[in-house]
Amino acid sequence: MRLRILVAVMSALLGMGSPAGADYRVREVGSFHIGGRDVVLSGLPIQELSFTAGMAPIKVDPNGEFIAGQMYVQYVRLAEPRRLPILFWHGGGLSGVTWETKPDGKPGWQQFFLAAGYDTYVSDAVERGRASWARYPEIYPSAPFFRPKKEAWELFRIGPTYEVGGRREAFSDTQFPIEAFDQFARQQVPRWASNDAATQAAYDALIQKVCPCIVIVHSQGGNFGFRAALNAPDKVRALVAIEPSGAPDPATVDLARIRGVPHLVVFGDHLEDSPPWQTFVRAPRRYATALAAAGGAATWLDLPAEGIRGNSHMVMMDRNSDAIAQRVQDWLIRTVPDLR
Amino acid sequence: MRLRILVAVMSALLGMGSPAGADYRVREVGSFHIGGRDVVLSGLPIQELSFTAGMAPIKVDPNGEFIAGQMYVQYVRLAEPRRLPILFWHGGGLSGVTWETKPDGKPGWQQFFLAAGYDTYVSDAVERGRASWARYPEIYPSAPFFRPKKEAWELFRIGPTYEVGGRREAFSDTQFPIEAFDQFARQQVPRWASNDAATQAAYDALIQKVCPCIVIVHSQGGNFGFRAALNAPDKVRALVAIEPSGAPDPATVDLARIRGVPHLVVFGDHLEDSPPWQTFVRAPRRYATALAAAGGAATWLDLPAEGIRGNSHMVMMDRNSDAIAQRVQDWLIRTVPDLR
Repeated sequence: MRLRILVAVMSALLGMGSPAGADYRVREVGSFHIGGRDVVLSGLPIQELSFTAGMAPIKVDPNGEFIAGQMYVQYVRLAEPRRLPILFWHGGGLSGVTWETKPDGKPGWQQFFLAAGYDTYVSDAVERGRASWARYPEIYPSAPFFRPKKEAWELFRIGPTYEVGGRREAFSDTQFPIEAFDQFARQQVPRWASNDAATQAAYDALIQKVCPCIVIVHSQGGNFGFRAALNAPDKVRALVAIEPSGAPDPATVDLARIRGVPHLVVFGDHLEDSPPWQTFVRAPRRYATALAAAGGAATWLDLPAEGIRGNSHMVMMDRNSDAIAQRVQDWLIRTVPDLR
Repeated sequence: MRLRILVAVMSALLGMGSPAGADYRVREVGSFHIGGRDVVLSGLPIQELSFTAGMAPIKVDPNGEFIAGQMYVQYVRLAEPRRLPILFWHGGGLSGVTWETKPDGKPGWQQFFLAAGYDTYVSDAVERGRASWARYPEIYPSAPFFRPKKEAWELFRIGPTYEVGGRREAFSDTQFPIEAFDQFARQQVPRWASNDAATQAAYDALIQKVCPCIVIVHSQGGNFGFRAALNAPDKVRALVAIEPSGAPDPATVDLARIRGVPHLVVFGDHLEDSPPWQTFVRAPRRYATALAAAGGAATWLDLPAEGIRGNSHMVMMDRNSDAIAQRVQDWLIRTVPDLR
């Protein structure tokens, strides 16, 4: 009881109250691209294109020099930030929009953590969003995959069934704002299965450019985040993995390197109702267990086990996203030395 | 002389000094998607994909429901903004990144106008950046075009010649930061030639959602901006067209509708050295002339004629971008009633 009161007092002193609705002073909103390599294409036939309706076709030469494999990063730098910025890395078939305003129009995690005093760096990984993408099969070896709404509904654990043109059944306790599901579908972007190496290289370069920092990753971003911490344990001061869809095999990496990098893994509800997620969750669980056994700090936040029910895979878009963000923020303040 | 002093005094009173380096208080950084239509695909073969290196291929069904034709808009809302927000619309083969940090790392026009007190809405048009894009040939009828570096160098009037793998010759007086040209190339995204109608519809919907406002457009955005003003003259309080690559035929539109919408058209240097631009400039010139003849307010800002030499097509990325932004800002304050 005494401890609880102490925590409450310290929370107030550290400004851990909900930052919703607070203004903040900004020094700069900006962006950059990082990574990428030069590519030369030749031998492609001249194209005839009309760039506007009714315009006579003009001949254009698709050959020449290009850049492929770059990533986009947008930052908001505060006038008086906390000591460490937060990097936000999205999941598969999505872009940095994941962290912005939620599909229901309410503020998302970027806004939450800005109001809480962090500089934010939201990226679009290689091939996604403003990062741009490259020709296939000339540069990328294959065609992209476009996720249908049904797959998003079911794989993101919004509900058990989605009939094309018919009924969408949600979990009765879902926290996802299902009335905004079509708005969420507008955020989806095509994904390839061939750009992991370029993506990791761009993330690693980003960390060298802007860190020390905190990294918050989602879903497909999990693997990239775990690797990034292993590649730069001096730069990543904490890693928060929201519903990571994978993790390295602990037998193949040197976990001793990241003993000083606290990891928080957060999972929502209805894993047991999703056969793919029963599989996906195994690697992160094995990784966190191995990290703890190796003397590292790995916290597993199982939301239903804490009495928080109904969270989908898109925790940062769920109705209770602020409450989960607050949990992450509390963990950061408790765990990361010198965060201010 | 007396008038000049009066203008200087009023400028100081109205806060028209350079806003470079100023912090500003932000209420919200956010975003949304607007527009788009439902599409159903069927009959496509099941694909086998490995989503990460080494992962056993899984079967995925590319059929189902999708959304196509939506646009992405990111806003920064200030705590105490001027009365009208500014909407920034990019050009062809580019995204909203056009308006953000310049390729040389210096602040761009979004930052300039935020510091000058405007809420900003930066969009990625249909098919570009975070707006996402749709399958071809199933949804878009054709393949996209990827602009080679050579085309950007020459068509954007950075210099007269670009040899692939060889020498890049710039205009001797160019304002473009040529050492950052490859960084600029990282910003380029593929473009289609078939989405004009969806793009116009999304822009028109955006105006209905967030205006009254000021609209600043670039290059391919010119046509969309001119049409948007014609479609909503009560909502668009001023249109600034930076190097518009086209404009409607004045004989086919009702210019009387936009008599109350002041237009500013800005062109940089070396039009006479670029045969394509000698052609492209004709339609905007004819449009501005016709608008003035119809009793409208059309200001043509020819930078070289004002003694400002060397601006490329990418005026907002040129070394003197702040000076041009200041010209635009001065024109807005002079021209738009009730701007504060």
